[in-house]
Amino acid sequence: MISKSQVKDIRSLSSVKGRQEQHRYLVEGDKLSREWLHQGKNICHVLATSSWLREQEALLQQHPETLIHEVTPDELARVSTQKTPHDALLVVALPDFQYALPQHEWCIALDRLQDPGNLGSILRIADWFGIGHVVCSPGCANFFNPKVIAAGMGAHLRVALHETSLEAFLAQCQMPVFAAALQGTPISQFPKQKAATLLIGNESTGIYPALLQRATHKVHIPGGGGAESLNAAVSAGILVAALFGGIR
Amino acid sequence: MISKSQVKDIRSLSSVKGRQEQHRYLVEGDKLSREWLHQGKNICHVLATSSWLREQEALLQQHPETLIHEVTPDELARVSTQKTPHDALLVVALPDFQYALPQHEWCIALDRLQDPGNLGSILRIADWFGIGHVVCSPGCANFFNPKVIAAGMGAHLRVALHETSLEAFLAQCQMPVFAAALQGTPISQFPKQKAATLLIGNESTGIYPALLQRATHKVHIPGGGGAESLNAAVSAGILVAALFGGIR
Repeated sequence: MISKSQVKDIRSLSSVKGRQEQHRYLVEGDKLSREWLHQGKNICHVLATSSWLREQEALLQQHPETLIHEVTPDELARVSTQKTPHDALLVVALPDFQYALPQHEWCIALDRLQDPGNLGSILRIADWFGIGHVVCSPGCANFFNPKVIAAGMGAHLRVALHETSLEAFLAQCQMPVFAAALQGTPISQFPKQKAATLLIGNESTGIYPALLQRATHKVHIPGGGGAESLNAAVSAGILVAALFGGIR
Repeated sequence: MISKSQVKDIRSLSSVKGRQEQHRYLVEGDKLSREWLHQGKNICHVLATSSWLREQEALLQQHPETLIHEVTPDELARVSTQKTPHDALLVVALPDFQYALPQHEWCIALDRLQDPGNLGSILRIADWFGIGHVVCSPGCANFFNPKVIAAGMGAHLRVALHETSLEAFLAQCQMPVFAAALQGTPISQFPKQKAATLLIGNESTGIYPALLQRATHKVHIPGGGGAESLNAAVSAGILVAALFGGIR
């Protein structure tokens, strides 16, 4: 059973404003809730059905500080941001810790990336390949948007997330910067990199010209078909696989 | 000005049932509407603001059979499936033509791929690399779902779309079949292919075991990080880039 004011508080976590005011964010669904309980800290509330709570009893005992609420599927549907029904939902404190910006380590930097699904998929790419840092410019989708959490599939627990001016980041960056640009050099002409930043731009307008000038290399993925471009997350995946991953 | 019954008809095109009954689908937004008018046929209706209609006058004259409706932004918002306002929306007849299934040509085959954004992104990958065919199993998201149209970015105009049993497709297929599977061989061990089918499975459960057995090769993308998997469209992009594209 949850109160009306609790419903209101949880629902407001789908907006940036609500998350800033409460300094909390949402994690939704069985799989992600279990992953956060396994690896995460600062879990304020668990809202879940009685059967889910029973199944996860041992896991929940590791979080004595967490408030646990047994709710009905209808109550969960009322606070969830998703269409399909869930067994569980967490309210988690936003992390306070600011990581140092990477200087010599592989990193993906995003210039005003708008789509939460793309941002989540790119965090998942970093997490898959073991890239430790993702840097977002102001104007990107928010790391703690529920759709980013869903598409990230747990990447938030393992990848250091930075939001800062990309000019400032690139100024202190001591590694090659590869910018994805339609007029770039084919990616096959570059060897695998020990440390580099991959810079991906806005879905419609690409990378801001002043930033693009600061890239040490402009790269593109040779196509040959009729499309004007690839999806931003797909491009990021192919470029990371070529410059960092084991596809060659 | 559009009537109530027109609003109802157009809104119902967001469902499979509505599209089947009317044998039509939606194309939304300025960019895609222009692309369809440039390359597409069988455009039944254009709904657009007066300024958009004025700008596209020459283009619209190439479609004398099309009914043109001048509407207000509010009227467009009422029929649109999207949140952000648009200048234009088309109602297009579903294609009747059935293409022959590819036997010796590059193809992406999808087993019960659920997410419309993923399906659209994969069509866009095929379109980018010039892969002529995408084959979907029954149970995939529908090719003409408005979200698939939006994410496909015009791929529907250039890629042959097939919906059929993948068992039947693979039975007649005379080329190597590469199945994306977490327990597969690293992709780097395979050379570029002249003709092949890349088989991608459902986002949660992967490829149906009986289908996986029919693949000539199981491949995976070496990772090294903490994520369990990559997004299906990102995986497809990396595997196509490695097996077909010019990234090595």
